[in-house]
Amino acid sequence: MRRGRAVLESGGGRGRPGYSREDILRAAVDAFNAAGYEATSMGALADRLGVTKSALYHHVSSKEELLGEALDHALGALGGVIDEVTEFDGTDMERLRLLVRGTTLALCAEAPSVTLLLRLRGNSDVELRAMDRRRAYTRTVVDLVSGAQADGDLRADVDPPTVGRLLFGMVNSLVEWYRPNGDLSPEELAELIGKMAFGGLVPRS
Amino acid sequence: MRRGRAVLESGGGRGRPGYSREDILRAAVDAFNAAGYEATSMGALADRLGVTKSALYHHVSSKEELLGEALDHALGALGGVIDEVTEFDGTDMERLRLLVRGTTLALCAEAPSVTLLLRLRGNSDVELRAMDRRRAYTRTVVDLVSGAQADGDLRADVDPPTVGRLLFGMVNSLVEWYRPNGDLSPEELAELIGKMAFGGLVPRS
Repeated sequence: MRRGRAVLESGGGRGRPGYSREDILRAAVDAFNAAGYEATSMGALADRLGVTKSALYHHVSSKEELLGEALDHALGALGGVIDEVTEFDGTDMERLRLLVRGTTLALCAEAPSVTLLLRLRGNSDVELRAMDRRRAYTRTVVDLVSGAQADGDLRADVDPPTVGRLLFGMVNSLVEWYRPNGDLSPEELAELIGKMAFGGLVPRS
Repeated sequence: MRRGRAVLESGGGRGRPGYSREDILRAAVDAFNAAGYEATSMGALADRLGVTKSALYHHVSSKEELLGEALDHALGALGGVIDEVTEFDGTDMERLRLLVRGTTLALCAEAPSVTLLLRLRGNSDVELRAMDRRRAYTRTVVDLVSGAQADGDLRADVDPPTVGRLLFGMVNSLVEWYRPNGDLSPEELAELIGKMAFGGLVPRS
């Protein structure tokens, strides 16, 4: 049940007007990432927003609803990258490079909700569904690695599922340390990751 | 305050004898990883072990004590790798390769406690201290990358701190997916990671 960009009006008590649903969602994602989803109560979230708990419940039916929406957001961004890669007319190696690049950019752009997605522990239905979709993403990666190996574009002496996990282990680590105002822009990070993953750290003569 | 390998004796109630401190610690780490440290109460931990909460408190003064001990365990394993690397008589590139390899093996051997270490959010003193020590580890990595660049053994067109983060992003991702009975042994994983990180995915002619 989606309520659009509802505004939390002052309920006469501690409520403060002017919060859009987007603001609430952003605050929820920050709180979940900071203290953990399980450890964040709706009461703590209301405190964070400076509104009463009942004012918050007026606009959001449950904590799980916020989690579901945040995960949809993250999965939507990653799904957009997969669509772009699928439609791209090129070799599997070119597609894999595009996937690594696109995922890096998506992660930088949507770091908070992707962080939440990657830290899922699968304790609820919402989380289990999101983890299913994450697994579909992993299958695409493995298919591209195998295809690139068959074409002779990717070294043959490595195991595709493990390469996929390591490659995206590297990319996904961004959510732990990427800062929007850091030394490198998302474009520069995508380039560095491409160099490292495909070219390797040892200089090529 | 360490109590050695205390045994939880049956307290006459639901207590079950035979748990060593190591068993308690292992159960605590599993519970913290599964549900999050904040979300795991001493009561839930006692339930998991099949003992009463008071029996558990008889042997452990707080949840934070268990966290501290688990983190010491993880940091001890990683510290052993750093010592080995520091004592190794070789180039910085050789040391970096040794560090990647040793960390991979340590992570596979101590996956549960290292998982806990890597998921720290820094909400308590124990966590903040562990994060300090984790940062010292990161500095070693950056120094080795810079040194190897200066020797011409590592490509010059990459930023050392970012390379360090990405390299260990890849290695650390092991805690998310490594299974002791999986297809690849720790040795095989260490070899694959070395190939990928240093050689790159594109075949060298």
